[in-house]
Amino acid sequence: MEKNVSQRISFDDLKLFCKQAYLRAGVPEDEAEIVADLLARSDLRGVETHGALRLPIYIQRLQKGYVRAVCKITTVKERGSTAFLEAHGSMGHVVAHKAMKIAIQKATEHGIGWVSVKDSGHFGAAGLFPMRALEKDFIGYVITNSAPIMAPYGGRERILGNNPLSFAFPTVQYPPIVLDMSISVVSAGKLILCRKKGEKIPLGWAYDKNGFPTEDPYEGYEGGGFLAAIGEYKGYGMILVHEMLTSILTGGKWTQHIKSLYEEDKTGIQGTCHSFMAIDPECFTGRENFKKEMDRYIKSIKESAKAQNVTEILMPGEPEYRTESERLKQGIPLESTTLQELVTLGKSLGISLP
Amino acid sequence: MEKNVSQRISFDDLKLFCKQAYLRAGVPEDEAEIVADLLARSDLRGVETHGALRLPIYIQRLQKGYVRAVCKITTVKERGSTAFLEAHGSMGHVVAHKAMKIAIQKATEHGIGWVSVKDSGHFGAAGLFPMRALEKDFIGYVITNSAPIMAPYGGRERILGNNPLSFAFPTVQYPPIVLDMSISVVSAGKLILCRKKGEKIPLGWAYDKNGFPTEDPYEGYEGGGFLAAIGEYKGYGMILVHEMLTSILTGGKWTQHIKSLYEEDKTGIQGTCHSFMAIDPECFTGRENFKKEMDRYIKSIKESAKAQNVTEILMPGEPEYRTESERLKQGIPLESTTLQELVTLGKSLGISLP
Repeated sequence: MEKNVSQRISFDDLKLFCKQAYLRAGVPEDEAEIVADLLARSDLRGVETHGALRLPIYIQRLQKGYVRAVCKITTVKERGSTAFLEAHGSMGHVVAHKAMKIAIQKATEHGIGWVSVKDSGHFGAAGLFPMRALEKDFIGYVITNSAPIMAPYGGRERILGNNPLSFAFPTVQYPPIVLDMSISVVSAGKLILCRKKGEKIPLGWAYDKNGFPTEDPYEGYEGGGFLAAIGEYKGYGMILVHEMLTSILTGGKWTQHIKSLYEEDKTGIQGTCHSFMAIDPECFTGRENFKKEMDRYIKSIKESAKAQNVTEILMPGEPEYRTESERLKQGIPLESTTLQELVTLGKSLGISLP
Repeated sequence: MEKNVSQRISFDDLKLFCKQAYLRAGVPEDEAEIVADLLARSDLRGVETHGALRLPIYIQRLQKGYVRAVCKITTVKERGSTAFLEAHGSMGHVVAHKAMKIAIQKATEHGIGWVSVKDSGHFGAAGLFPMRALEKDFIGYVITNSAPIMAPYGGRERILGNNPLSFAFPTVQYPPIVLDMSISVVSAGKLILCRKKGEKIPLGWAYDKNGFPTEDPYEGYEGGGFLAAIGEYKGYGMILVHEMLTSILTGGKWTQHIKSLYEEDKTGIQGTCHSFMAIDPECFTGRENFKKEMDRYIKSIKESAKAQNVTEILMPGEPEYRTESERLKQGIPLESTTLQELVTLGKSLGISLP
């Protein structure tokens, strides 16, 4: 990947550029700050698929009025530990940031907080939201529905999403544990890449439009096929659970009615639904004990015997943590196509990439 | 499977037999009722691996003093929406039954309830506990750690469990959605069965003791290997998350220190840790709306286009629901080995299978 890198940019500079773009698109200062931080942070952590690469489409959608530039969140219902919010087509990043904050406040007061939101939008990298809980040594959690790219187990219609989940756990010495995963075996992007390279895909990654396993990356996605779920019927079950805990719980838009970022959508609302949870370990073994036990446990896993040819056992979130540490020093490498698109975007908005 | 069936028994008769066995082993009447119901209900729903098949080992462990016959649960900490319990080596079934009840009570009062328990034991079929939440039209959830049969991603030491999760969701017309799954691709029992039959296993089910993928069912489990997680590093991450949300959160026994039901354990405590959650949909779209939306959603999935050669799309919990309906009428078929073991057990306890 580093092959096509034409330039490195600092986290601060990339964030500033994103922020300026959002400001030009009519987003208020505090909200531009939130979403710019999330985008640049995705790149910082090596999650480029949810970083500045997406800025042009996000800005385009704001300009077309598909996303509300000024965030509007209303509280539909609230109890001690729960909140039910409606986001009226606001930017997913800002909505998720604010909803996670409420979940954390609820957990501060009641030990646990659960917040569900309807009528939101694409929020980028899931892992960044539960990570907010780490500031208080809480456990964070998020699930979301998404755009349709998968089929039911035994089906062949693209009506399910890869509905990701993410968890974050605090630690003392070790990097925090951050699991951030979708429920498909691989991403659609991986199939597109294989198709471009003329490579076959392994059986188990995708099905063709008739519902048969395929080794052809085109048939498996762009040709009308669909991505496979992890553990077949098990992942299928998890995808349904995440749908039920988001869109069905809130009466929001099901995945099958959500359009992808790249589709025209005259309704003006993407409508993604999310749920957030925060848990205070103080209600159980205690915050300090919990973090120490996390460290002891991580150590036991990392120091266990390795498979032959493996040099190190990694924990969820560890690769991203290392990338973040390296890129904070060395800067973020921008892939040349992304760079080009950002330059073009900058010109159209009258701002320039540092 | 039906081939070796020598007899059918009614749910009530099987439950009564189990209850009498527990009573003879010193379990009080109300607790014998709880665990007998859970065991017979597992068989009723076709989850034989967690049914009466296990009665002999459960009774043996009670007789040896490895499990506390009279349930003792103490509340370590409690807040509005959370409870932290210690189970002192009591029977997992009874502990889980009581802990789920508390989670439901908390959700009744506060919209959500989360209960974590340490020092419990094997609780059988996970799905039966969140199903309790259905009585109030709540959503139920449980996770547990378990005995070590898996290795970290990149490792080869058996220090992780297949740490199952289960969710239950209420409906109106359709059977409730009950997802009950472990995080391994297949169960250890499936490998043992293949080894007995002299069959190879597909790559992706298990690794050998050096951490290489294997097609040999013996190498993959009994020979020191380990089961594969769904989605490789993704399932590995989920297993860790379930460990962190149970044993690490409670300061209880990690999976790597838990002995299986069939191992001698002089400590007298198996020590499994569980967490339970209940959510009241009334805090979101409302209980009645939620159930109706569940139905509408299930209908949309079931009526979507089927893959070629597939006649029906099933939902999580639907096969078990059908088995339950059939067996309530026709009785539960007992596999001949199980029947033999139950007859032997009955003789030793002075009770007889109806």
